[in-house]
Amino acid sequence: MPEIKRCVLSLSGGMDSTSLCLHMLNGGYQVYGLSFQYGQKHAIELERLRENLSYLKSKGFNVYHQLIDLSSTMGAFDSALTKQHIDVPEGHYAEDNMRSTVVPNRNAIFASIIYGYALSLAQEFEQEVKLGLGVHAGDHAIYPDCRPEFYDAIDKAFKLGNWNSELANYYLPYLSMNKADILQDAIKSTGDLSLDFTTIFRNTLTCYKPNSQGQSCGRCGSCNERLEAFEIIGKTDPAPYFVQN
Amino acid sequence: MPEIKRCVLSLSGGMDSTSLCLHMLNGGYQVYGLSFQYGQKHAIELERLRENLSYLKSKGFNVYHQLIDLSSTMGAFDSALTKQHIDVPEGHYAEDNMRSTVVPNRNAIFASIIYGYALSLAQEFEQEVKLGLGVHAGDHAIYPDCRPEFYDAIDKAFKLGNWNSELANYYLPYLSMNKADILQDAIKSTGDLSLDFTTIFRNTLTCYKPNSQGQSCGRCGSCNERLEAFEIIGKTDPAPYFVQN
Repeated sequence: MPEIKRCVLSLSGGMDSTSLCLHMLNGGYQVYGLSFQYGQKHAIELERLRENLSYLKSKGFNVYHQLIDLSSTMGAFDSALTKQHIDVPEGHYAEDNMRSTVVPNRNAIFASIIYGYALSLAQEFEQEVKLGLGVHAGDHAIYPDCRPEFYDAIDKAFKLGNWNSELANYYLPYLSMNKADILQDAIKSTGDLSLDFTTIFRNTLTCYKPNSQGQSCGRCGSCNERLEAFEIIGKTDPAPYFVQN
Repeated sequence: MPEIKRCVLSLSGGMDSTSLCLHMLNGGYQVYGLSFQYGQKHAIELERLRENLSYLKSKGFNVYHQLIDLSSTMGAFDSALTKQHIDVPEGHYAEDNMRSTVVPNRNAIFASIIYGYALSLAQEFEQEVKLGLGVHAGDHAIYPDCRPEFYDAIDKAFKLGNWNSELANYYLPYLSMNKADILQDAIKSTGDLSLDFTTIFRNTLTCYKPNSQGQSCGRCGSCNERLEAFEIIGKTDPAPYFVQN
């Protein structure tokens, strides 16, 4: 019997991590997904994620999923994404006001927990576990903790700080891709796995300022970027928007 | 009015972090303490910590304290400190069986959250915040995430991954000290601050296998080391033990 391949992913409910999850399922991996509640105003993304996980399960793909609640601590962190009295800005990512959406050390916190979980699984099953990351070429200068250099540096620290670290390794299939390429990869994965791309991407939520029904604003940096990626691949975004674009 | 100095510490309820807390109070810092519930079998250490924080408050030292519950995730991590079916070993730290007490990536997880919290405070108050760490010369080869090299590496990653990182800096006053030196430092701090050393150290819990009343075993690696440190400074350990040594 061939050994089961395992990977741990952070599942935010957005486009990149959803595409990566499909990519890993298509590669034959058992996916262990972690999601983080960190006091984000757009936590409705996690409800939509659950809908996608139910859909995947109904099609025979059972993603092990765990929600980690860090909101008591991170909810008080200094960022427009968490603090009620700071508005989430509109516009494009390149603009300087988007800096207020940075959450101090967010990806380091997520990466540390994911790594510990992956290494723990690796020790228990006595086999390598991959850490899938959706880091990509379109990631932004305003988010220093999205850059490959950051992940290189923190991986060095994790390897120094753990036994058996040869068993937990990063896997970054999107490193040289942009958002449109990632969507194309998701189209390939859903095709290979006989899954419905439209159903899945209707449930992904990218917006930083969704309304209470989980409809997107179409105006924040995240929405602008998503809409551009769909335009490039010549498809209509199936996600619901409350503002007409 | 002089500016208030601020620092963030991880408070485990053990000797090192308690000594460090006293050291920072003696240095005039407002201390922000974070404690982690990670599924440790010896979580009673946190109850004893609360007693010490109440004592400090009664003497005019108000430590801001927050408990972070990671037990749903880390409680399932592969370690003798967390898993019910793996016994915590007895003996000395130098021995190889103590490796089972390592928790995958534990200090990276704690350090990431502490750093995010410190940087967030630094941004809000627009001033430097120190991250106090009890790392010391007596730290053990079996815990790779206690070594200065690990903290150097992860600090590099944090600095790469954040804006304003010049505002959050590590402070490791015990780097070249051993456990006995740290106790001497605590004696000095309590003396300077007119606090009672015996009251405080009766409430510190070092043992990995305490009984349900919070009494120590006197036989695990942690207890052995603590008892040796008290012997070196020529004091009787005020903590209660359930085994006669």
